[in-house]
Amino acid sequence: MAQKTPPDSTRRSERSRRAIYDAALALVTEVGYAKLTIEAIAARAGVGKQTIYRWWTSKGAVLLDAFLDLGDQAARAAGENAGQAEIQSEIPNSGDLEADLKYVLRATVDEFNDAKYDAPYRALAAEGLLNPELGAEFVEKLLEPQLQLYVKRVEQARDAGQVAPGVDPRIALELWAGPLAQRWLMRSGPLTHDYADKLVEYALYGIAPRPETS
Amino acid sequence: MAQKTPPDSTRRSERSRRAIYDAALALVTEVGYAKLTIEAIAARAGVGKQTIYRWWTSKGAVLLDAFLDLGDQAARAAGENAGQAEIQSEIPNSGDLEADLKYVLRATVDEFNDAKYDAPYRALAAEGLLNPELGAEFVEKLLEPQLQLYVKRVEQARDAGQVAPGVDPRIALELWAGPLAQRWLMRSGPLTHDYADKLVEYALYGIAPRPETS
Repeated sequence: MAQKTPPDSTRRSERSRRAIYDAALALVTEVGYAKLTIEAIAARAGVGKQTIYRWWTSKGAVLLDAFLDLGDQAARAAGENAGQAEIQSEIPNSGDLEADLKYVLRATVDEFNDAKYDAPYRALAAEGLLNPELGAEFVEKLLEPQLQLYVKRVEQARDAGQVAPGVDPRIALELWAGPLAQRWLMRSGPLTHDYADKLVEYALYGIAPRPETS
Repeated sequence: MAQKTPPDSTRRSERSRRAIYDAALALVTEVGYAKLTIEAIAARAGVGKQTIYRWWTSKGAVLLDAFLDLGDQAARAAGENAGQAEIQSEIPNSGDLEADLKYVLRATVDEFNDAKYDAPYRALAAEGLLNPELGAEFVEKLLEPQLQLYVKRVEQARDAGQVAPGVDPRIALELWAGPLAQRWLMRSGPLTHDYADKLVEYALYGIAPRPETS
């Protein structure tokens, strides 16, 4: 399922790779995952289908890499906007965990509401539910790296005394990441900035009445 | 997508309905959702396929009702074990929200780890991601009624002063229900009683250091 050999870095390969990603993302939106084929991706990208089979073993693997690349591009653009040379791949640390989490979760809500991400991400998630091999790759390459950014930020907050010492950061982050993913995937409720804010507040301070700070 | 006319209550209809449910659940586990067909369900159940089409409009609708019935059966069995005549369809209220939530979440973990539920629930969730009509029915008939049980229990706790007055119960419950669903669907981490307990503790008391009660 993984890339067999990474595309080499010549300009021609890079151009083919990008054309394949663009074709896979456009086609899954147009025809849906069930009708997506390697042949159609190759035709749309203007490459031979052997070019695709040389680099990937299945349409799911192509789509996953195309989607990961979309995320890299967005992160790179965000980094450039922020005047940084490199990819923005950390959760900001202003010293205020609540503010930083709200900032990132509001951006995630905006991303989830962006049609560009909808069809491919939904297709990958659905296919991952039924196909354990692609599911494991989805978690390893896409979901877990995103969640690890929260682990790091929660650890920083714990070191700064803003998170209780006994808290497991890998579980803590699920209090906001799990609900967001569920609402988005299941369409079980509105995805708004206010919702994102409430998740952060409830997770940080709990839903039980909080004793007054003296 | 909804049932066109409810199966009538004669014994013969009831027997056919049960045979159809059993066949749909067995077949989705054996061959997967993609290869599930109305024809195969009819053959396995020993009924004509017109009998199925009289009651349901698609294989997804049959499977959803079969799965809902499985849940009703489990709830009825739990009610009988607890010496109650009716279906156990409430979250217990012992007066201790933390204990009650841990009790129910541990049971949910056990259910998620039960192979009987795995293939049909996973198939319905995956199909619901791609098919908005079935997805909406999945949420309305299966997911939301389960979540509303938590809403009721959180409201009871709020009335008893165990939940802060400003908390929105419909969002609060997602702090434990969302992570559980994500871990189970994405297989992104172990589903254990200890995990369920931590989710409840973090959601109730927050991950930020809690001021000492005086």
